[in-house]
Amino acid sequence: MPKVSISKTEHKISVPILLTAVSGKIRVKNRSIVNEYGTPVAVCRDGFKQSNYVEWQIGYDVVKKEVEKLADSTLSETSFIGANGKEKALYELSEYTCYFYKWSILTDKDLNEIKTYIIGIKDEDLIDNNSELRIDRSHPISKKINNFDFEYTQVKYPLLIHRFGKYEVITEIKITEKQHAVGTQPMLYLCFPITELRASSNLVGRVAEKKEVAYFDITKNNIKVFIEVLKIFGILSKSHKHDILQIIETIQKYCSK
Amino acid sequence: MPKVSISKTEHKISVPILLTAVSGKIRVKNRSIVNEYGTPVAVCRDGFKQSNYVEWQIGYDVVKKEVEKLADSTLSETSFIGANGKEKALYELSEYTCYFYKWSILTDKDLNEIKTYIIGIKDEDLIDNNSELRIDRSHPISKKINNFDFEYTQVKYPLLIHRFGKYEVITEIKITEKQHAVGTQPMLYLCFPITELRASSNLVGRVAEKKEVAYFDITKNNIKVFIEVLKIFGILSKSHKHDILQIIETIQKYCSK
Repeated sequence: MPKVSISKTEHKISVPILLTAVSGKIRVKNRSIVNEYGTPVAVCRDGFKQSNYVEWQIGYDVVKKEVEKLADSTLSETSFIGANGKEKALYELSEYTCYFYKWSILTDKDLNEIKTYIIGIKDEDLIDNNSELRIDRSHPISKKINNFDFEYTQVKYPLLIHRFGKYEVITEIKITEKQHAVGTQPMLYLCFPITELRASSNLVGRVAEKKEVAYFDITKNNIKVFIEVLKIFGILSKSHKHDILQIIETIQKYCSK
Repeated sequence: MPKVSISKTEHKISVPILLTAVSGKIRVKNRSIVNEYGTPVAVCRDGFKQSNYVEWQIGYDVVKKEVEKLADSTLSETSFIGANGKEKALYELSEYTCYFYKWSILTDKDLNEIKTYIIGIKDEDLIDNNSELRIDRSHPISKKINNFDFEYTQVKYPLLIHRFGKYEVITEIKITEKQHAVGTQPMLYLCFPITELRASSNLVGRVAEKKEVAYFDITKNNIKVFIEVLKIFGILSKSHKHDILQIIETIQKYCSK
């Protein structure tokens, strides 16, 4: 798997996307009007369609003790303490932001604006505290299925979609239960059409090659999307808020020109 | 972790339940009227309450190639070919059924009745094909949250609950998306109050000891629940139907007196 490539002269970051991944944080999915979150595509067998998109559970940090993952960050020497008390380095979203700040495409004004915005969000207004974004359960009704008596209910999960104006990129926030604790947990995904990828040849209409990688280029033309995502991360929960504020401080400290 | 213990003389199977597990197939959860699936309990810190229950994602087979898991089956020498083409051995649900059949508490009549029932279920009546049990998505509405424009929808997952008459055990079937393919996937959980467990001392009102294990006893008094669960598994999907029919055949072949 190639590494992320950073071009200082072109002011371009190229993120490799493994198109054939069936698990992990980045997947090719198909959007249709009949389904919910989109369904995974077997791109080696079924090929790419115009309606395919990349779903990327983008991160913004890496725990320093996770040595293997830390090696994926080009800024592994950076350091801040996350809301969970662990020492972390900049990664993905914060990593990209750092470079564009270093290249003066993002300015202190941009970062301070985000900081002020996030600090201004009260705890009760954070996404995971929003009473309109609760996981909900319908009143049970009786249902006989194949001679078995069941009670049938629907468990309803909120899904928020934000569009970034003219950009072909959207963000999805799924609210789910916390895995190991009481409460809800918002999860953020970045989604964009596969046509936004730079591939060895046009993807639509052909199958994927074995372990094929395409690239998503981040430039001054779309970095705005990524700092908007950083801002949205900051309002998800108290932990996210803490982390993003720490990240902005870290960027301003470590990533000066 | 102790192994499942099988007493031929008492006709009793004791399943060890690790009360402090925070992941895995068995977890202690708390039921409340305000939540959806129940939330995990930190039993070491918060202790046990009357409203706590065990959620057990019970299985019925083990792939022979998964050597470590295979060692957990007391019938690792048994063999059938699953719907996925893999060689499997009896495990958990099918394992318990096998012993009670061996002990003549379950009879050929019981097993044949399940077989006839499952064979009689048409493909279009299987749970994963039931049009009333689809994952559903509400029409999106606009929502401004902390100054960001979002589209808000709810993704609705069906949940079926079956109660086993007088028994304190229920079964939950959650319908979710398949992880790596198109379609839905019913997942079955067995749930029972922690008061059904045999522990070193009464659980309610005290905290769990480090790595505390309690036991769920399967006897002639409650084996009926387990073969009902086997029957319900058989109507979840085409693969489940195939597996359960193979399992019944395997039990009748390998587990004679």
